[in-house]
Amino acid sequence: MKTLKAITFYNFLLIFSISMTGQNNAGKNAGKIIESIIKQTGSGTVPNTVDVIKAGDANTPVKGIVTSMFATMDVLKKAVAMNCNLIIAHEPLFYNHLDETKQFANDQVFLEKKKFIDDNKLIIWRFHDYIHRIKPDAIDLGMAKKLGWERYSPDKEYNMFIIPETTLRELLVELKRVFPKNAFNVVGNPDMRLSKVAFSAGAPGSSQHIRLLEDTSVDVVLAGEVPQWETYEYARDAVSQGRKKAIIFLGHVTSEEPGMEYCAEWLKGFIKDIPVNFVASGPSYWTY
Amino acid sequence: MKTLKAITFYNFLLIFSISMTGQNNAGKNAGKIIESIIKQTGSGTVPNTVDVIKAGDANTPVKGIVTSMFATMDVLKKAVAMNCNLIIAHEPLFYNHLDETKQFANDQVFLEKKKFIDDNKLIIWRFHDYIHRIKPDAIDLGMAKKLGWERYSPDKEYNMFIIPETTLRELLVELKRVFPKNAFNVVGNPDMRLSKVAFSAGAPGSSQHIRLLEDTSVDVVLAGEVPQWETYEYARDAVSQGRKKAIIFLGHVTSEEPGMEYCAEWLKGFIKDIPVNFVASGPSYWTY
Repeated sequence: MKTLKAITFYNFLLIFSISMTGQNNAGKNAGKIIESIIKQTGSGTVPNTVDVIKAGDANTPVKGIVTSMFATMDVLKKAVAMNCNLIIAHEPLFYNHLDETKQFANDQVFLEKKKFIDDNKLIIWRFHDYIHRIKPDAIDLGMAKKLGWERYSPDKEYNMFIIPETTLRELLVELKRVFPKNAFNVVGNPDMRLSKVAFSAGAPGSSQHIRLLEDTSVDVVLAGEVPQWETYEYARDAVSQGRKKAIIFLGHVTSEEPGMEYCAEWLKGFIKDIPVNFVASGPSYWTY
Repeated sequence: MKTLKAITFYNFLLIFSISMTGQNNAGKNAGKIIESIIKQTGSGTVPNTVDVIKAGDANTPVKGIVTSMFATMDVLKKAVAMNCNLIIAHEPLFYNHLDETKQFANDQVFLEKKKFIDDNKLIIWRFHDYIHRIKPDAIDLGMAKKLGWERYSPDKEYNMFIIPETTLRELLVELKRVFPKNAFNVVGNPDMRLSKVAFSAGAPGSSQHIRLLEDTSVDVVLAGEVPQWETYEYARDAVSQGRKKAIIFLGHVTSEEPGMEYCAEWLKGFIKDIPVNFVASGPSYWTY
């Protein structure tokens, strides 16, 4: 009896604690949970958003949540092993921005991935447009946390950092310490001294990168990816002209994965009765 | 007199030899030389081609020709030092596919590059659409020559090679030998055995890459570049599903620069009275 009483009291505390500090999500279906996440971002409705369910049934009750950069085959398998059925991925499921699948009707890779999702009753939701609209942008904040640079962002927007003066070479050593498996594509003089670092996650296009490189209050840009005939060549010419500018391409995954790691922490702030886990997809390639 | 006679006879031979084996280009302006190059490709007119003069005056007499992958600041300076004023580049001059410059009206990098071109009366012509239409595609043939793989192309199209069976790891060692400064982005199992290699230069888009990876007559694709959320993730899923497939991204420059090296040889086949030189721009970035 004593034990039962204790359990009952514990359950009361648990339920009380959920109602005090978070939503009651137990038994909620994926559609409802996604709605509540979007609400929590504080963003107005994004027209034509890509943040829709890419596969699976919105009516499925959610057992557990996995956040990831990409819902790769590997991430999906890990999610199933962790008994999680809602996968929240920042990027597309099927290899193009809008997840168009018509061209994959007879593609074995697509069909096997789709079958795995269906067989395991998974729901894949993309969380892209809305996570970037959290104030401050949760992808930027995730990177700041990963680098330990929150204190270096004067305006707390986490896309512009004033770090203690260092060289491009030393900055790369520090980045390698944080992302040991990552290859960094760099345009710039390794001896260049710098302290003003802009962060431009993902693939916003070269005009954003170039605007940052033009800005006299920026020494170096940490970027995700871009076509190589665009920002890369602009930066190469700038350096060749003797300008004190540099850009480091982290790769798309590395530039935004810390944001999806932080996303799991952010979700745990209001989803307390469903397990939430971050699963790294890691860079899509290895470098030789 | 003997000497003069000898020189005169030599000049006669030179002129005779030019008229027999090539065009007489001495004193020709850039516009005329470009016309003759396009004619030599054997291609019909390409509508809306990007192969236009990007900077400089078509009426300028050509002193010498430089072929390059990109007309970087560095390549332009080398061309001037070599007394060459027609630069034939495969890719854009001003950091976007159509060389739109409106957004650079106040950009110091653009203005300095433009001034250098104007001050030195250079002509920059893009040779992209037409060089790919030479039969066989001269960019593909350039890569085959660079790798020493001409004999491995059964159809002599140089975009599909049957090489002696090897592993992905050993293939990368060979590629590193040919391109020692290049970083290769790889998706695939290093121990995978392979012999059927498809080559897909530049940035043709993921649908071409994926079509090649779907093809049972292809083990590995040598590619240029692509957005990382496209082919990279498709290939990662394919490998994760246990498929015997791999893709190696050489980077955009490395995938097409051998073609522009070969282009200089090809031009020398019919332009014999103007110096023609290849100048490497090299990869746009270094990798750490």
